Order: sequence, then structure tokens, then C-alpha cells
Amino acid sequence: MAEKKLIEETDDLTLQFDSNGLIPVIAQDADTGCVLMTAYMNRESLDKTIETGFATYFSRSRQKLWKKGEQSGHFQKVKQILVDCDQDCLLLKVTIKAGQCHVGYQSCFYRELDKTNPQKLNPIAKKTFNPEETYK
Amino acid sequence: MAEKKLIEETDDLTLQFDSNGLIPVIAQDADTGCVLMTAYMNRESLDKTIETGFATYFSRSRQKLWKKGEQSGHFQKVKQILVDCDQDCLLLKVTIKAGQCHVGYQSCFYRELDKTNPQKLNPIAKKTFNPEETYK
Repeated sequence: MAEKKLIEETDDLTLQFDSNGLIPVIAQDADTGCVLMTAYMNRESLDKTIETGFATYFSRSRQKLWKKGEQSGHFQKVKQILVDCDQDCLLLKVTIKAGQCHVGYQSCFYRELDKTNPQKLNPIAKKTFNPEETYK
Repeated sequence: MAEKKLIEETDDLTLQFDSNGLIPVIAQDADTGCVLMTAYMNRESLDKTIETGFATYFSRSRQKLWKKGEQSGHFQKVKQILVDCDQDCLLLKVTIKAGQCHVGYQSCFYRELDKTNPQKLNPIAKKTFNPEETYK
């Protein structure tokens, strides 16, 4: 518990990476507050993000660094990096120019659970770009 | 890939729980857009959340359902539940009355990485309650 309290109160970055060396990251639009996506970082991708000022994640499926936008041009310019109380999650405040989600939406969270039938999803957004054009 | 596309485009809730039956959840203040915390849900805790209208998570450390606020009184009233493209993360839009983070802050993200020395953290918020009083 002493260690837990230390992590919560310290001004030293003591990130708690998981057993795969990863930490979950939330990207939030710094201008609108819209939560855009979640992804993972390892230490190297965080260093790259700090060094370049653009969000660089670690792709679990491809097992390599992934600069967000490297294919689509939908880069995330990082304004601020926050860490949570137990230092096992990061929150990036980013600015963006265009769509973000590979499906074509601004945010990955483009569907809500239907309030009367929570097994069904309702769209809450329209696509902002055509992924077939962007990822061709 | 066909299955992936289906998950992204379907209006059926087909949550992708991890090997422990859990899914990460972000709680965001519906009024201010402030990201408050992240936690996990299993299917039962999601059902409980839908049924009661109050966020109920699954505590990994205690291995049981955990109604947020059951000790502190800092409940989260759920206004909307969103799911991301690959249905492996939930976003809860919640309204709150008081502090949220057990350390005493409104949000768990109360420290930012220092821009000139990213191994150091700067506070960006003040405590909104005294956890020693709240959790006594």
C-alpha cells in the first residue's frame, strides 16, 4: 500500500506497464473533448511521441510502432500527456485535422447502446471520410 | 477480416471481452467532457449498469462487482453508453456530484507529464475532497 500511495502522490513518472510492456492510452480531442480512440503504448512509443510531438502507439496486431496517421494522414498532434492515479493509463490531449477512426468516423465511438434494447446499437455520428479512398 | 468488418458496421452489440471476460471502460463527465477514470466491466457488471442506471464495474483486485461510489458516495449516473469500432472498449457518459478519484481529485488524471522533463509530473488539479474523511 505504501508503494501504491507513492505512485499516486509522486511527481516522478513511474509508469506501470503490463506484463507485455504496454500501457493503455486514451486519445481525446483537445478542442472538443471528444474521446477519439484507445490504443496501447510501450516505452519506446511513448518516447517517440514525446520526441516528435505526434502520437505513436504500439500495434499489438502488427507488433510494431505505429505512428497514428502514417497510412491515412490522420495524425494526432499531442498537446498534453496526462497519467492517472495508479499510473497504468495515459490520456493524450491531441489536435486533429480530419477523421480518426479507420472505419471512416471522427471518433471510434460512433455507436451508442440503444436505451430500450441494449443489445442493439444506434449510430450517433456520420462518416467524415471514405476509408476505401483513404486506405487504398 | 469479414468478421472484423461485421463488428465495425453491425448494429448488434457483440462485445469482445478479453480472456478474463473483461472489457475496459472509460468514464467521461457528460457535462464537462472531462475524462474521469478507466476501469473494467464483465458482462454482469454491464447488465447491472444498464439495469440500475449507475456505473458498476468489476474490481480486478477484489474480483467482484463494484458499484462506483458504494464506499465514497461518489456515484456515476449513466447518461449514455458508447462502444468503439472493434467493440472492445466502452465509453460511459456520466453525471457526477462530487469527487471521483479515490486520491481526492475529480478526475484520476490529475497530473501531466512535464513538457521539459517528461520524467516529472506536474499537478493540474486540486483535490476536491479529503479521502481520509470519505473512506474512514
